[in-house]
Amino acid sequence: MPVVRIHVFKGRTGDELQRLLDVAHDAVVEAFGVPRRDRYQILEEHEKSHLQVLDTGLGMDRSERFVLVEIISRVRPRTAKLDLYETLARSFRIECGIDPSDVMVSIVENSDEDWSFGMGRAQFITGELTASRTD
Amino acid sequence: MPVVRIHVFKGRTGDELQRLLDVAHDAVVEAFGVPRRDRYQILEEHEKSHLQVLDTGLGMDRSERFVLVEIISRVRPRTAKLDLYETLARSFRIECGIDPSDVMVSIVENSDEDWSFGMGRAQFITGELTASRTD
Amino acid sequence: MPVVRIHVFKGRTGDELQRLLDVAHDAVVEAFGVPRRDRYQILEEHEKSHLQVLDTGLGMDRSERFVLVEIISRVRPRTAKLDLYETLARSFRIECGIDPSDVMVSIVENSDEDWSFGMGRAQFITGELTASRTD
Repeated sequence: MPVVRIHVFKGRTGDELQRLLDVAHDAVVEAFGVPRRDRYQILEEHEKSHLQVLDTGLGMDRSERFVLVEIISRVRPRTAKLDLYETLARSFRIECGIDPSDVMVSIVENSDEDWSFGMGRAQFITGELTASRTD
Repeated sequence: MPVVRIHVFKGRTGDELQRLLDVAHDAVVEAFGVPRRDRYQILEEHEKSHLQVLDTGLGMDRSERFVLVEIISRVRPRTAKLDLYETLARSFRIECGIDPSDVMVSIVENSDEDWSFGMGRAQFITGELTASRTD
Repeated sequence: MPVVRIHVFKGRTGDELQRLLDVAHDAVVEAFGVPRRDRYQILEEHEKSHLQVLDTGLGMDRSERFVLVEIISRVRPRTAKLDLYETLARSFRIECGIDPSDVMVSIVENSDEDWSFGMGRAQFITGELTASRTD
């Protein structure tokens, strides 16, 4: 269920972008324990002028390979979030050659009743989807 | 007040897109009971590679007519949300020929103090807008 | 830390867009008291058909210079938000010639644990960033 929006700078090939999305999804599946078909991803490529990122004074270099991952999810435990940050940074480094200093993540949480996956129904409320299947 | 962001795949005509936005707005007005001029919509058209959607294992086919509706709103009762999901699915089917299996919705809530509609003021806090007018 | 997404209509020059982003960042730094290098901005330019905005019946004219500022931030006091709305409206008017009737803001809050600025770590949780530095 999470909706995952990924922001990058223009310049990657189609294959690189697909790899990035696949690796991001694997990390979400692993850290949040969602079903593999729980995939909803939006990819946005930006001109350098349209995605401005510094480092909050943390002393991290940001390169043209910077990735911002924005996630909307129902409530997750802190441990799952910390796990996701580690998993994303490690996987992007190993699988996509992205330095961990170029991986930023921001999560916004909502509730079970805030999702309809189709058919006009709220599947977490109707019971078609249960916590045990998606948490 | 809701900010409504609508994601679709490229391929619709300008008229189809305008119709989609109008129908989505009507559904929000009906289900949330907001004023007709409470309209703030962003439409994003994506390449197939840039909007990846599966079905969380619910057995729903997603076609090239898939629509993801993301809504930011102040707090709404559950009944209004469930009504919105039904209304969106029904209206998109009747008015736009979109199958209900292609209609996904995600809501994020914020508070009255989180909105400024202009003039540097928070109109829900100043009293220029009241709950009775917009709920 | 806030992630600031700015929506405008197409038609501004590159210099105007950069000025807009700079002025928006100054306002966030001033109103929220974040470090100057706490800058994460996404700029989205839209066709007129793809950004539809009315006025919730408040009697405000919206022009082609309309700006919607969407902010994701950890929790801020109400006074800081009201200050941000005023500062944005005033600065956009003085520095960019945008009428305050064309400046809309929407804020969504999350928590300290919802941010990783890089390195796979949640810097507000590890203590690398503290409330005193960023509030």
